[in-house]
Amino acid sequence: MRILTAEEFFAERKQTSPTITNEEKLDRAVLDIIHNVRKQKDSALINYTEQFDGVTLDSLFVTEEEFEEAKTQVGDEFISALNEAKNNIQAFHEAQKEQTWFMEKDNDILLGQKVTPLDRVGVYIPGGKAAYPSSVLMDVIPAKIAGVKNIVITTPPQQDGKVSPYVLAAAELAGVNTVFKVGGAQAIAALAYGTETISKVDKIVGPGNAYVARAKKWVYGDVAIDMIAGPSEILVVADETAPVPYVAADLLSQAEHDESASAICVTTSAEQALLIKTEVNKQAEQLERKDIIKPSIQDNGKIIIAENLHAAFDVVNEIAPEHLELMIENPRDYVELVKHAGAIFMGHYSPEPLGDYFAGPNHTLPTNGTARFASPLGVYDFIKKSSIIQYSKDALLQSADSIITLANVEGLTAHANSIKIRKEEKNA
Amino acid sequence: MRILTAEEFFAERKQTSPTITNEEKLDRAVLDIIHNVRKQKDSALINYTEQFDGVTLDSLFVTEEEFEEAKTQVGDEFISALNEAKNNIQAFHEAQKEQTWFMEKDNDILLGQKVTPLDRVGVYIPGGKAAYPSSVLMDVIPAKIAGVKNIVITTPPQQDGKVSPYVLAAAELAGVNTVFKVGGAQAIAALAYGTETISKVDKIVGPGNAYVARAKKWVYGDVAIDMIAGPSEILVVADETAPVPYVAADLLSQAEHDESASAICVTTSAEQALLIKTEVNKQAEQLERKDIIKPSIQDNGKIIIAENLHAAFDVVNEIAPEHLELMIENPRDYVELVKHAGAIFMGHYSPEPLGDYFAGPNHTLPTNGTARFASPLGVYDFIKKSSIIQYSKDALLQSADSIITLANVEGLTAHANSIKIRKEEKNA
Repeated sequence: MRILTAEEFFAERKQTSPTITNEEKLDRAVLDIIHNVRKQKDSALINYTEQFDGVTLDSLFVTEEEFEEAKTQVGDEFISALNEAKNNIQAFHEAQKEQTWFMEKDNDILLGQKVTPLDRVGVYIPGGKAAYPSSVLMDVIPAKIAGVKNIVITTPPQQDGKVSPYVLAAAELAGVNTVFKVGGAQAIAALAYGTETISKVDKIVGPGNAYVARAKKWVYGDVAIDMIAGPSEILVVADETAPVPYVAADLLSQAEHDESASAICVTTSAEQALLIKTEVNKQAEQLERKDIIKPSIQDNGKIIIAENLHAAFDVVNEIAPEHLELMIENPRDYVELVKHAGAIFMGHYSPEPLGDYFAGPNHTLPTNGTARFASPLGVYDFIKKSSIIQYSKDALLQSADSIITLANVEGLTAHANSIKIRKEEKNA
Repeated sequence: MRILTAEEFFAERKQTSPTITNEEKLDRAVLDIIHNVRKQKDSALINYTEQFDGVTLDSLFVTEEEFEEAKTQVGDEFISALNEAKNNIQAFHEAQKEQTWFMEKDNDILLGQKVTPLDRVGVYIPGGKAAYPSSVLMDVIPAKIAGVKNIVITTPPQQDGKVSPYVLAAAELAGVNTVFKVGGAQAIAALAYGTETISKVDKIVGPGNAYVARAKKWVYGDVAIDMIAGPSEILVVADETAPVPYVAADLLSQAEHDESASAICVTTSAEQALLIKTEVNKQAEQLERKDIIKPSIQDNGKIIIAENLHAAFDVVNEIAPEHLELMIENPRDYVELVKHAGAIFMGHYSPEPLGDYFAGPNHTLPTNGTARFASPLGVYDFIKKSSIIQYSKDALLQSADSIITLANVEGLTAHANSIKIRKEEKNA
């Protein structure tokens, strides 16, 4: 884990020349899969599942029996924890609901904004060796609250041809009973364009590997997507009050995701920087996933020393982190200084995993600096708006000349004519 | 203009096999431009402007003198109409402002959603032969209301090396004084990645040709974009009360955009369908842009006869039109039947150009069926949200076991450890 000053950090950022990633090989593979699924539909899905997951499927659907079996496998402790999480996620996301509104103006003018839930949503849940029931809750609950009627899940099957019982239990708890055993770019293509078994959706959400992310980029525009997720990051701002073991543990929790995950600490104390570095190395040795954690910390871990908290927040805003922990005294006094962050965890007892699993706000967050322009997944992702415009005859005629002037300036004379024809009738 | 029944319409939609568009040639050209701009920055912009716009630029900036000169060229009538439009657009978009909120829960838990404006926005305005001052207002005003501090416009120069005075007057009225004379994919690349003169932005908005649209698709993810706009559409629902000349004029106003624009009418009367067809042909002959209008109407114009208004709204929702006009009696009684539409124009005196230029709601709308999942451009496009999570020690310890259970199920033991370390200290 490198220790550097804020000045050194900014100097390095400036020197970094843009890496123009050549994704051509990945793109070719992904586009091939998308084209094949569009042409051969279900049979392409079956073939790819054989090829990539090593599973020959009789049916793409998870059966009712499999749902029942899952319930017996997951244990009460898990269900109870999942229920608590569900209640918290629901309570938070209910506050994001938006309503249709109208605005009346003089002359019988009515304007408005109509809010309508999306019809169909597809949730991608990664599978194979790992299982992410938390992602099921985080993706499905906001869609349900928005009022989406049709929600389906796709997830790659395990080697035994089944889907993780934890994922199925979470799906059932969230109220989704259509789960397809298909993963990768082929699942994204099926959700975007439809097959005999899987109906085309309006929006695809959920995390995934490089193939899934690239497929989402390609289908974007034909269908909505939540975001193109990159590697996960944490940035911990620590002052002298931050307990060093907590800071280290939180940095390490991020590092275990994968080798490209990045864990960064900004501290106002050079002394503490050294203590944190030592503690990170010590704790890392004791962690199960140290083979992932060590290269991640080695390659992407940084401790940045800032002169004061204001300078620390300059670093925060330069990085625009997915997860931001403020392990400082009186974090609320500083939250206004945060311009870009996916989620802000305040105080010594709000570690990132609290938000990943439990507190209520969404864990699907903008990564890789995209918090500059993107938001956490929310109920707003599952609705769309339509503008409403109603003018009375009087109101239109009063504005007619201005509209005609503006249309003519743009050379759109048939636009002008649609106003003129109404105006002239009045004069007739 | 073809006349067909709703049944025939649905049967045709089902038969249409997916056209897998091969954009490879376009993509290669666009990617080349993007790569060159990233490497050679300003000098690439100068070269492309020479190549594509036939203009050799001394400076990319529109100067203060050019702004002053524009004011003397546009005339009072235009400025006054533009001012009225500006006031209406402002009034409507003010209602879209969102505020930061907090939610307090037992045990000193604080959750919230912080709303922050984007830092930098780039607005693309098409240029060359046409000028679109209305797009300047529609793109800039919501960004200003959101609180965006840095807004720049890029637009291709005219053959004389200048920018349309109408665009400059609109920019000044909207409060933007940084306008760059650069268009096409090269402008999108400059906004996305930055050059010596043009700073990288967080979001790119605004309409454009196929190159611009494709470039936006490519830079999406590195930067936010508003949407990938396709050809423009109108759908007019007409009952017996709809004045035939108005219906025809409104269909034709859409058809003048370009040959791929589509104008569709759904009517409940076969007799009226014939009258509309005749009127469309008659009016088309008298319109300035008939060379664009006639092929557009010929290729994409349709009049669909529905048995009743409910059947008409099935057609509406199948098409998910960008612009929807309800030229029916009591349109407010039917608005709830509309599931997918960019903007809904109600009654006989609310023609589409009223919304394009004047009423207040945005004219940047989801095209090509994307109203199924996308919204008009709005203030919400220029802010982002950050979640806020603060737990007290008590609150965290009370939830610790559940969080640990969920983390362990996902195999993320370092996540579990970040909770455990806080729990164990309590027990110590």
